Amino acid sequence: MLKVGIIGAGRIGKVHITSISTRVKDASIKTVADPFMNDETAQWAKGMGVEHVTKDYKEIIDDPEIDAVLICSSTDTHSPISVEAIKAGKHVFCEKPIDHDIDKIQAVIDALKGTNLKYMVGFNRRFDHNFEAVQAAVAAGKIGRPEIIKITSRDPEPPSPEYVKVSGGMFLDMTIHDFDMVRFLAGCDAEEVYVQAANLVDPAIGEAGDVDTAVITLKMENGAIAVIDNCRKAVYGYDQRAEVFGSEGMVAVTNDSASSAVISNAQGVTGEKPLFFFLERYMDAYGKEVTEFINAIVNDTDTPLGVEDGLKPVLMGLAAKKSVKEHRPVKISEIMG
Amino acid sequence: MLKVGIIGAGRIGKVHITSISTRVKDASIKTVADPFMNDETAQWAKGMGVEHVTKDYKEIIDDPEIDAVLICSSTDTHSPISVEAIKAGKHVFCEKPIDHDIDKIQAVIDALKGTNLKYMVGFNRRFDHNFEAVQAAVAAGKIGRPEIIKITSRDPEPPSPEYVKVSGGMFLDMTIHDFDMVRFLAGCDAEEVYVQAANLVDPAIGEAGDVDTAVITLKMENGAIAVIDNCRKAVYGYDQRAEVFGSEGMVAVTNDSASSAVISNAQGVTGEKPLFFFLERYMDAYGKEVTEFINAIVNDTDTPLGVEDGLKPVLMGLAAKKSVKEHRPVKISEIMG
Amino acid sequence: MLKVGIIGAGRIGKVHITSISTRVKDASIKTVADPFMNDETAQWAKGMGVEHVTKDYKEIIDDPEIDAVLICSSTDTHSPISVEAIKAGKHVFCEKPIDHDIDKIQAVIDALKGTNLKYMVGFNRRFDHNFEAVQAAVAAGKIGRPEIIKITSRDPEPPSPEYVKVSGGMFLDMTIHDFDMVRFLAGCDAEEVYVQAANLVDPAIGEAGDVDTAVITLKMENGAIAVIDNCRKAVYGYDQRAEVFGSEGMVAVTNDSASSAVISNAQGVTGEKPLFFFLERYMDAYGKEVTEFINAIVNDTDTPLGVEDGLKPVLMGLAAKKSVKEHRPVKISEIMG
Amino acid sequence: MLKVGIIGAGRIGKVHITSISTRVKDASIKTVADPFMNDETAQWAKGMGVEHVTKDYKEIIDDPEIDAVLICSSTDTHSPISVEAIKAGKHVFCEKPIDHDIDKIQAVIDALKGTNLKYMVGFNRRFDHNFEAVQAAVAAGKIGRPEIIKITSRDPEPPSPEYVKVSGGMFLDMTIHDFDMVRFLAGCDAEEVYVQAANLVDPAIGEAGDVDTAVITLKMENGAIAVIDNCRKAVYGYDQRAEVFGSEGMVAVTNDSASSAVISNAQGVTGEKPLFFFLERYMDAYGKEVTEFINAIVNDTDTPLGVEDGLKPVLMGLAAKKSVKEHRPVKISEIMG
Repeated sequence: MLKVGIIGAGRIGKVHITSISTRVKDASIKTVADPFMNDETAQWAKGMGVEHVTKDYKEIIDDPEIDAVLICSSTDTHSPISVEAIKAGKHVFCEKPIDHDIDKIQAVIDALKGTNLKYMVGFNRRFDHNFEAVQAAVAAGKIGRPEIIKITSRDPEPPSPEYVKVSGGMFLDMTIHDFDMVRFLAGCDAEEVYVQAANLVDPAIGEAGDVDTAVITLKMENGAIAVIDNCRKAVYGYDQRAEVFGSEGMVAVTNDSASSAVISNAQGVTGEKPLFFFLERYMDAYGKEVTEFINAIVNDTDTPLGVEDGLKPVLMGLAAKKSVKEHRPVKISEIMG
Repeated sequence: MLKVGIIGAGRIGKVHITSISTRVKDASIKTVADPFMNDETAQWAKGMGVEHVTKDYKEIIDDPEIDAVLICSSTDTHSPISVEAIKAGKHVFCEKPIDHDIDKIQAVIDALKGTNLKYMVGFNRRFDHNFEAVQAAVAAGKIGRPEIIKITSRDPEPPSPEYVKVSGGMFLDMTIHDFDMVRFLAGCDAEEVYVQAANLVDPAIGEAGDVDTAVITLKMENGAIAVIDNCRKAVYGYDQRAEVFGSEGMVAVTNDSASSAVISNAQGVTGEKPLFFFLERYMDAYGKEVTEFINAIVNDTDTPLGVEDGLKPVLMGLAAKKSVKEHRPVKISEIMG
Repeated sequence: MLKVGIIGAGRIGKVHITSISTRVKDASIKTVADPFMNDETAQWAKGMGVEHVTKDYKEIIDDPEIDAVLICSSTDTHSPISVEAIKAGKHVFCEKPIDHDIDKIQAVIDALKGTNLKYMVGFNRRFDHNFEAVQAAVAAGKIGRPEIIKITSRDPEPPSPEYVKVSGGMFLDMTIHDFDMVRFLAGCDAEEVYVQAANLVDPAIGEAGDVDTAVITLKMENGAIAVIDNCRKAVYGYDQRAEVFGSEGMVAVTNDSASSAVISNAQGVTGEKPLFFFLERYMDAYGKEVTEFINAIVNDTDTPLGVEDGLKPVLMGLAAKKSVKEHRPVKISEIMG
Repeated sequence: MLKVGIIGAGRIGKVHITSISTRVKDASIKTVADPFMNDETAQWAKGMGVEHVTKDYKEIIDDPEIDAVLICSSTDTHSPISVEAIKAGKHVFCEKPIDHDIDKIQAVIDALKGTNLKYMVGFNRRFDHNFEAVQAAVAAGKIGRPEIIKITSRDPEPPSPEYVKVSGGMFLDMTIHDFDMVRFLAGCDAEEVYVQAANLVDPAIGEAGDVDTAVITLKMENGAIAVIDNCRKAVYGYDQRAEVFGSEGMVAVTNDSASSAVISNAQGVTGEKPLFFFLERYMDAYGKEVTEFINAIVNDTDTPLGVEDGLKPVLMGLAAKKSVKEHRPVKISEIMG
């Protein structure tokens, strides 16, 4: 039985606590740390079978009984805590992104060198039943050689301008999931990025220096062309679709909804909207994700999303920002130099 | 080039005039007869290339130049005009039903005996692209041996109580199409009929002695069970679906709509209603139907729907009426006796 | 924290153990009893947090610490154990059907009289997201007054002839779920049943005295007509659909599948089959069901499915059997007499 | 009754002859000219009611009885014959594209100046029921302000390398329809084009100097971002979809197929492929298109697609070619200069 510590008990931290508590057989949660830990959260955690709560994450780092750490704290702490945990000999699951700064991700890569520790980045969508099915079809050769990869990813509600300011921008905050998805579905890396972006949803987002709507074209290493379309606000809910077109066919997935109920009346034939947002859509994926992490430790196998998988989408995001700024296609290799 | 006469220039007569005029290469319309022929209809017919119009259908019967007659007049005239036309040596296309009275249908059967004339009954739905695809899949063995056949057939608007009184009742007026469809899809005849019916749509229909909602169960000769559900009023439009379930699978068709456009917004995900009624849904089927009739004459082949195919659904309709009256399953053989 | 005992650790018993262990906050499992209890099951139960296992269900009945009992044993034991548990002052969740014999169900009703104990029957489909949505739409008046209710319920694989012999027949074993669903969707009871049934899937089922394919027509108390179509074998998987048509519209649900992935290639446009069988399709519904039972105890409210809801579908099943035997429509009131 | 002359009796010429002959009330075809006119075509044309056939299109230009000309000859002749016909005082319907050379299109524009002649370019897809529904929803404000416009347009089979050489390249030959569609759906012009293209389908197309797969991003004048994805070969058939996403919702259309039949069996749930190619998919649109042209003449209204609508997509195509060559976004204004 692995002992796990969880750093950060916000929205996503609670998701992982719930998953480990109810779905993961081989792990139990010893400690949950959060600087804003309060009675309510402590009570809830106790009900979930957590042994101990604290405001100080160092209690987790320093606890020799704890085998693995889940880093669910704010983005700026992901990389330094990753390094600390690795140095303390712990396996690490880190929420995305590891960092917006390549050097800081490099520090994590360096810390891992020579250890046998497992490291996993939380790109949860890879564990969604729909995207798994697309990837499986592509990998099984059912559509031949991929030629065009399309991802639609639109949020139901824009973030606050305050959040936008510290988010690293849409490409590193939101599109980063789609950059990971493109790599997952194509089975290779991107070579070049071109972005056409705009500020259409909320002027305050533009004033905060960001865009909210974009179409991103990517040239993939296998020759396929990928295109992502993003918007920070879709009034009908969380729009999460993908399509891979290839020499022998196409595989596509659409949104999930709460039920298949369709009402036909004088106004038309109406089904339900997509599930509202990521907590509704990806709850099961979060559970599978963290189970994969624990399994990789127990079985001593690679995690499905290593530290390099955390780096690559950040490079793509930085290339996307540069493409907008310089209004031209940007090669990934320009970012790494 | 066949010369055709059309008796009856009401709604369905006009459909056939249009089809022959625009789609059928091997036939031209010499004469259209209608007791209510007026200037407007005459003008329209002329525009459609009709040579001659008249109030007297005898002009068609007596015209030696006319090879084939389409009977689109009121139901009570179908059988006597069929007999007259056959005796005058003309091929006959007769709108459904031939009659509500078996003896009168028998008179047509008798008239045809010993002739080489073609006779076809207008069960247009057999020529609909969707139902054709179901029948083709069943006939090709794609679903194995049929076990359950389901037909949904609901009209967008109930007829007037006046019409109901002379219609022969829902089973002979509306369900008769579904009885034909069951035979078409099953590839065999029905043995027994049980009806659960009600008057739910309009009390005036009940006062006129009819029902407006029914579920009809049939035992087919091949062992399959069929079920038809009917209603005289579906607020969302003409509901015309079918499903055949068998030992190796299922084939199902749904409604057609004017476009595939789907609007997703805060209220839901809404597509278009089914096409409104039979003129919208089956216009293409009417064209194929009449083309098949002309082709059967030109190529001297059987028509796809002979006089027996006109008789069988009437027997089923009479059994359905008896089932409602006596509240029990009724064998088709009871009707013929 | 309620203490629960579970009698029967077969397939469905394990489902409930898992649900209570992982999803139900207000209950823990003290004892699991099964006459065939073995090391493997005991080990598994321990992993699920079960305190104690035994071969003797009397340990549960006699344990004053246990508040509620889930009866997941063989059908013939449902009613006597229900009575024992009630007499021991325990709340009871009983798998369907309570019994095939009305007198034995009556014994449970009698035992409950004058107590404040909760009793719930396990018609799990009421807690399925799709059927819940249909019922909610009907209850909210979105389709007006119900006129035609259609349920398709087909299993992926037939039971063994051995099972068929002790099952009580298809209507009490399989259709009973659909009888409950008809009541749930119509919001009222059935008045009359007519069955057209056949033995098409496996001759051994016929030799065991049962049918395997049926279309069941019901007259409901609110005037609606309901129709259920059943088959013991659908090669494409578990087919579980429903449709309610009314004066103001229609609501329909279709099957769930493992993903929305659709592959388009030279052979066609192919999506996934329905989820295989009830464990795949209704796992979430089982969890909601047992949560509702525990909530009813905790909050002292009615269970959503009381003992009367266990009786009614049995009456409908007995009427269905009589309809097949006597080949006529049978009133529910004939069964109760 | 308008008298029409048709220049070019190839595939698309025959489509228009059939439409005018069977669907257009206010026009009849006096003359069909084709340099390769042969007995078979002459016979067919006669059957369609064409009065006269010839090898020399000048017979049409010089015929004072002919009111309107349809130019269905090879692309290089579109512009000079347009000018000739205009000078002869005839209304002109010209197949797309008018020319690949802006100056030659300008010559047509100049010729039209000061006349009251109608000119229409044959972008048939605007008359497709699905795309009409998308445009109508956008124009009616049902999705708010357009933000992202997506068009998928993939052919079932690539053209021969010989054709590719004279085609003007994929952007002027195939994408030109999508450029028109983007303008139609956005309700405005494009400002800038960026293309990511590749030669993935057939090396011979690359050797002929063209691409066969592309993702084209456009900045529209109303601020929306549009993206077109093209491929010369989709094994599942003609893929013609569109989606417009806006501030208040989304409208999307999918492909048409021959029927709605879906077969469920042990292999999956399989529907029909999209209709094979443009003749299957757009036959009805061609009929509506030519009817609109004739109506514009009869009613003296603007044609729905004037000569400017012929120019704009060519500018977009030339910008696309420049974008591929220079690997950068290209403004439409760069082309006009």
